[in-house]
Amino acid sequence: MARFVFMMAALIVLLAGTQPTVADERPPNLVIILTDDMGYADLRAFGDSEIPTPHLDRLAGEGTRFTNAYTVAPICVPSRMGLLSGKFPARFGVFNNVYSLPSNELWVQQTTLADVLRKRGYRTANIGKWHLSGNSSADSGNELGGFVFKPPHERGFDEFVGITGGMHDFWKGTGLARFKDGRYERFESPDYLTDFFGTEACDFIQRNKSQPFFLYLAFNAPHAPLHGLDEDQAAIETSEISPNRRKYAAMVRAIDRNVGRVMQTLHNLGLAETTLTVFLNDNGGGGNNAASHTRNTAINRPYRGHKFDVWEGGIRIPFILHWPNHVPAGRSCDGIVSSMDVFPTFAKAAAAELPTDLDGVDLLPFATAKQAGDAHEALYWQQQVWSRPNERKPGPNYPQPAYNLAIRSGRWKAVKQDQPFDGTNHGRAWELYNLSRDPSELNDIASEFPEKAQQLSDAFFAWQKRMPKPMHDSKSSDAKK
Amino acid sequence: MARFVFMMAALIVLLAGTQPTVADERPPNLVIILTDDMGYADLRAFGDSEIPTPHLDRLAGEGTRFTNAYTVAPICVPSRMGLLSGKFPARFGVFNNVYSLPSNELWVQQTTLADVLRKRGYRTANIGKWHLSGNSSADSGNELGGFVFKPPHERGFDEFVGITGGMHDFWKGTGLARFKDGRYERFESPDYLTDFFGTEACDFIQRNKSQPFFLYLAFNAPHAPLHGLDEDQAAIETSEISPNRRKYAAMVRAIDRNVGRVMQTLHNLGLAETTLTVFLNDNGGGGNNAASHTRNTAINRPYRGHKFDVWEGGIRIPFILHWPNHVPAGRSCDGIVSSMDVFPTFAKAAAAELPTDLDGVDLLPFATAKQAGDAHEALYWQQQVWSRPNERKPGPNYPQPAYNLAIRSGRWKAVKQDQPFDGTNHGRAWELYNLSRDPSELNDIASEFPEKAQQLSDAFFAWQKRMPKPMHDSKSSDAKK
Repeated sequence: MARFVFMMAALIVLLAGTQPTVADERPPNLVIILTDDMGYADLRAFGDSEIPTPHLDRLAGEGTRFTNAYTVAPICVPSRMGLLSGKFPARFGVFNNVYSLPSNELWVQQTTLADVLRKRGYRTANIGKWHLSGNSSADSGNELGGFVFKPPHERGFDEFVGITGGMHDFWKGTGLARFKDGRYERFESPDYLTDFFGTEACDFIQRNKSQPFFLYLAFNAPHAPLHGLDEDQAAIETSEISPNRRKYAAMVRAIDRNVGRVMQTLHNLGLAETTLTVFLNDNGGGGNNAASHTRNTAINRPYRGHKFDVWEGGIRIPFILHWPNHVPAGRSCDGIVSSMDVFPTFAKAAAAELPTDLDGVDLLPFATAKQAGDAHEALYWQQQVWSRPNERKPGPNYPQPAYNLAIRSGRWKAVKQDQPFDGTNHGRAWELYNLSRDPSELNDIASEFPEKAQQLSDAFFAWQKRMPKPMHDSKSSDAKK
Repeated sequence: MARFVFMMAALIVLLAGTQPTVADERPPNLVIILTDDMGYADLRAFGDSEIPTPHLDRLAGEGTRFTNAYTVAPICVPSRMGLLSGKFPARFGVFNNVYSLPSNELWVQQTTLADVLRKRGYRTANIGKWHLSGNSSADSGNELGGFVFKPPHERGFDEFVGITGGMHDFWKGTGLARFKDGRYERFESPDYLTDFFGTEACDFIQRNKSQPFFLYLAFNAPHAPLHGLDEDQAAIETSEISPNRRKYAAMVRAIDRNVGRVMQTLHNLGLAETTLTVFLNDNGGGGNNAASHTRNTAINRPYRGHKFDVWEGGIRIPFILHWPNHVPAGRSCDGIVSSMDVFPTFAKAAAAELPTDLDGVDLLPFATAKQAGDAHEALYWQQQVWSRPNERKPGPNYPQPAYNLAIRSGRWKAVKQDQPFDGTNHGRAWELYNLSRDPSELNDIASEFPEKAQQLSDAFFAWQKRMPKPMHDSKSSDAKK
């Protein structure tokens, strides 16, 4: 009997260790609110913007702001892949929006956050932008429109409504796609797109109020084109603003309004305290310096660069964790975190099965100050150069001959530009920045701290060796070996 | 009789109008203290430096700081030419340290500040760096060493002691030149160079205490090479510093010590209140990103770029005006001013004859708040590109195919890079920055404010048309027509 009691006790301890105690309670609802090409400084919680965003201000005030948060990649496709897989996109050979069939084969083998949450019993939906099934065209001619392969319902989402590609008109009447109950349909947006996505999000929450749900609300605003409602434009009070910036500000205001609607819906349904929400941006703002088709007047101040760049302006993102009574209100956390941390954070909170091969880490101990410091000893970026200097051409299909590389560890950041594909060391020299003193990366101190630069270079290439070999066309399949 | 009284009164008014009332008093002593490639942020009065500079802190505290001060050029030679001529160096066709005989012909025709002050009865001296007589080599083989033509005593200076070229060792025993009483001699420095220049400056002041003097004390510190005294290096208390930065900090500390000696000498001689001193830097700091031979770890934060650049990091300079009881203590003046304003400021204060063709303006009304706003409606920079991107080569003689252009007017700054010599409009597009919101020039808003960009472009080219046509080799002499 004593032996039986002991074994039962051991079993209970074992179960408690592997299975969080919330397992038998209803796990929290989980919401990702993602914006697209928004400027780092365009939220008052992170900059000094002229754009009124009362609902996002409130979200930040009630939640914890991460002031050293990064995206896994400075461009849409790998950024979204890292978010939903919890891994560096280098693990599946995606370094830009231009990716090849072998890369896709590796990507579709990944377990997504939606997969593990659906398995845990969540109702899951992607509302808004998908951009994860091949080429970015929403009308590529096959019967699934832009879904070249593996649409959302094959990646863990019960529902999808929105756009399949990367860029889209916002006006009422523009074409959209919906997946629901295994069926695919096209329709015209009954409203300004950002408002329509807000309506769909509130409807999804309403329909699923009685069960755990995972909502991946991926606004395509404020990505170009600059389509802003007149009423939103009029609400931007300053006259010291250009016509384009006013449109952009209107797009951000529309996001804010719909974030407010979602939070109000959760509150009205009594779900405010049982919903864990993360708000973040997919990559740095498009700004005015980026490739022409993505320019949107976003402001990444004080950071250098923009979308596409491995400068801070391309990879630093606003990041808010919101979960009343679980995550402190009004706190600011300066540890280094990544968008790939959302996966383990959500899976842990849901007591869902956590894949063992994630690069991300659970952020709740950091948010609650149980754990201090950086969530990552180092973060790494490898980004295919969008275009060569002075050879900028529009469109995503311009041939890319080189990578930009970056590593951040502690206060240090090292950047290496124009690294050739062949792996030879012919790119520009590693640059070194002390972000705690020089957040704008204006003062390269590699020549002052050559050992530190070498150490980061070594760490980068050691990381790179652990990744599969990049595949640049369908003939190359080394990564599968 | 009434007619006679009226005419006398009119004559007195006329004289009072053309001749300041200080004309018959002893005019103030005039001191320029110039540093070489120092970083904008490396003085605590302008940044948050880790370098202790108590004497410069005090100079700033007792004087007026100009927080929107610019050099006329982001490199030694044209910067010094603009300072001593009171004009844009484009007026004599000098756009880099590489300049040709026709440009020199125009330059040597200029009246210098030393000329007008010597004529007014001042004893004049250049102690330190000259770099205004041709090529930068201090030992070019002719009998006057680096003085290819028109050495200091032919440009208004009674005395000269120091270095003729641009770059020089600092150690005791390195070779120097002296002009005095029409004779030229070479000798070895009896001390660490910055300390020797301080000693010479104090000696000059001592010898001339009974007459008005003009001291142009042009430290070549902290220009490379990085030679810092052990005791100065040891005095930098932080351990969070690289070996090179520590040497640089030691060089700045040596400047500070010698500024203190000069100010103490003036005080001891009872000249503190009758001496107008301006402290400024020749151009932006060499930093770590500049051409290799000028890298010196200077920090231009928050400004982008460095020496050579028309970014703020290349042209923004610390600038202090110090004249007890005449210039307010502890004041900060945010109007736009230029290094070419020193000439008219000094000439006016001395009641010397003021050339009518200066581009600079008297700063005393701005320093004393009698006049508000900017001293210049616009400032312009035209700088020969030191080297092409990715083609950086050491040394000053690498062929230069293009210009970088910039204009600042009010809060606006426009920059145009890689403008070809042939005047065609094939360089990169004009970029536009709002410096009041974006001092680091990270966010090009030309596409947002095309009319403002066009207006600044028009203003720049209108200014350029008023300058002589550039001369790039000795065959071209259009400017003389």
